[in-house]
Amino acid sequence: MNKPLISLAAAFALSASWTSPLAAQDEPAGAPSPNEIVEGAEAEEWVSIPAEDLLVMTLAPASDGTEREVVIQFMPAPFSQGWVENIRTLARTGWYDDITVNRVQDNYVVQWGDLNYDNPEADGEPKLLPEGLKVMDESAYTVPASHYRFYGKPGGKVHESRSTPPLKMVNLFGRYAGYDGFSQGWPVAGNNSAVPAKKRNARENAYNNSRPDRIWPVHCYGMVGVGRNYSPDTGSGAELYTVIGHAPRHLDRNIALVGRIIEGMEHLSSLPRGSGALGFYTEEEAGKRTPIVTVRVASDLPAAERPTFEYLSTEGETFAKYVAARANRRDPFFIVPAGGADICNIPVPIRRAGE
Amino acid sequence: MNKPLISLAAAFALSASWTSPLAAQDEPAGAPSPNEIVEGAEAEEWVSIPAEDLLVMTLAPASDGTEREVVIQFMPAPFSQGWVENIRTLARTGWYDDITVNRVQDNYVVQWGDLNYDNPEADGEPKLLPEGLKVMDESAYTVPASHYRFYGKPGGKVHESRSTPPLKMVNLFGRYAGYDGFSQGWPVAGNNSAVPAKKRNARENAYNNSRPDRIWPVHCYGMVGVGRNYSPDTGSGAELYTVIGHAPRHLDRNIALVGRIIEGMEHLSSLPRGSGALGFYTEEEAGKRTPIVTVRVASDLPAAERPTFEYLSTEGETFAKYVAARANRRDPFFIVPAGGADICNIPVPIRRAGE
Repeated sequence: MNKPLISLAAAFALSASWTSPLAAQDEPAGAPSPNEIVEGAEAEEWVSIPAEDLLVMTLAPASDGTEREVVIQFMPAPFSQGWVENIRTLARTGWYDDITVNRVQDNYVVQWGDLNYDNPEADGEPKLLPEGLKVMDESAYTVPASHYRFYGKPGGKVHESRSTPPLKMVNLFGRYAGYDGFSQGWPVAGNNSAVPAKKRNARENAYNNSRPDRIWPVHCYGMVGVGRNYSPDTGSGAELYTVIGHAPRHLDRNIALVGRIIEGMEHLSSLPRGSGALGFYTEEEAGKRTPIVTVRVASDLPAAERPTFEYLSTEGETFAKYVAARANRRDPFFIVPAGGADICNIPVPIRRAGE
Repeated sequence: MNKPLISLAAAFALSASWTSPLAAQDEPAGAPSPNEIVEGAEAEEWVSIPAEDLLVMTLAPASDGTEREVVIQFMPAPFSQGWVENIRTLARTGWYDDITVNRVQDNYVVQWGDLNYDNPEADGEPKLLPEGLKVMDESAYTVPASHYRFYGKPGGKVHESRSTPPLKMVNLFGRYAGYDGFSQGWPVAGNNSAVPAKKRNARENAYNNSRPDRIWPVHCYGMVGVGRNYSPDTGSGAELYTVIGHAPRHLDRNIALVGRIIEGMEHLSSLPRGSGALGFYTEEEAGKRTPIVTVRVASDLPAAERPTFEYLSTEGETFAKYVAARANRRDPFFIVPAGGADICNIPVPIRRAGE
């Protein structure tokens, strides 16, 4: 009898369908997989996502008639809120309606917005932006970590502050930062500015009880960010992109991240790549640009059309077990547990509410 | 005048076309980008890839008539050579001809092979394998690091052994391993077994002059591996996959890696995702399975059809500068250099010979 190959290693999708790995016949004994751990979570460990924090983007149907809807979850305060407000304004004024996906660069980003904004393949006039958009400062790329809970390495000692809201940091051998971890259901990184820059990253771990004082969201697969021009421009939110490859974390602290795609990612990640500079579609490929029909804040939709989602609390016991299991896979397919995990290889479980 | 957005951050594609970032008008002054550094390499820093190490996979044309050819580069000795030999045998006996792409799982893998091998969506009999395939042992997932050159962090002290062939290790704040680095043009990781397991990863860096004694290839975007059944099975090479998302490095040392896609990656990464378990296409989606028409070792092709490629030596000065630039982007788009880089965010430059 055949068994699934690389199957039990499979549960790695930043997607709302948090399906169980296939229950194979003749499966060897082993520890529960990360997904099985998530399935055992108590109902109260799942946190509802406010409708105001969901953006529903409807693409034109695919050539075979398939409907294509993409749902984006915004980051909560204190992260990137000025840009998030701009995006709600752009959605509510209908500014995004009838824009297109203009750039698909393999192993990097899909970008949608105004065809004439910063596109080397076009030379028309940019679309007029609505009034009232905030102009954000680069300092808002990071936020104070004055409220957080700090966790040591999985299995290590737990340090906890008494502050609220609780932001949790899991120290997983920082490479792009002194710390990588999770805050309110999001992957974040942080530094402790008291630690000399040259001693951050690998060495900061050696500082006992050291804690980050600034944290920021990180560019994992499926995260959504704000295209911008050269510094000091920080972008308005009219031009958006999502990551469709290995986490380009050199963009962290250099561009505003505003959210992540929680459903319909495949409608963007499987688009044909553009052959122009930077993956923009050339004029000869104009037919490949996917039209975006409407973009709506979920709370503005009639109740019956409003999608509802929830994420697994990153503060709970189940999430801690899930992190530890992802860092040391001991389910039947695995021979050698890794002994660590990349923050972007620990997607926060998200599902349709009530599933 | 508009300028390209996230443009100078763009050069991140495991692709043969190592194009320069768009030369923007009014671009601020800044350090050279990683790509500009690569463009400055001397001709002798580019290393030819033997035709025996290239596999040309021709897919059926796309629905719009586009021809689709994928080129895979095999890993050199001492890595995974038993599986590589099997793959050459499978190609030379025509075994791969008329197989299909059966699985496309978003942010994970594309897998091709025998529709009836380990596919939960099919129940036919597997295709008979040719004789003479080697049965490889799990111990071959890693190789001795007795010959290598060890580099400290970029900018740090360089330790060098006198051994040959020279394998280079760049210590970039290991997380999945004590060391991440490069060997003969490939991303590899390693451990020093004398360092206690619990002190590896973050802490191993503190061991002065510590060197890995075992190294192994890592699951970066575009790497090609061998599907297998449960341990102790290690797969024959008949079933292959490539990574189309964030590096699933928990698979390192658990599955054999045999190569990487160096051209035509977009023909696999943009395929429609399967909706069955693990991203397999369901029977209702049978029409989405992409036929693989032929798979040939390049050295078996007529000289005129033989593609020729070269990679930038990972031993040279240009590569060292390129790594340092990727770890600390100072070209005009960037505000905050990261201070580090993930091994899978440092793709080895590869191009068609003579470009």
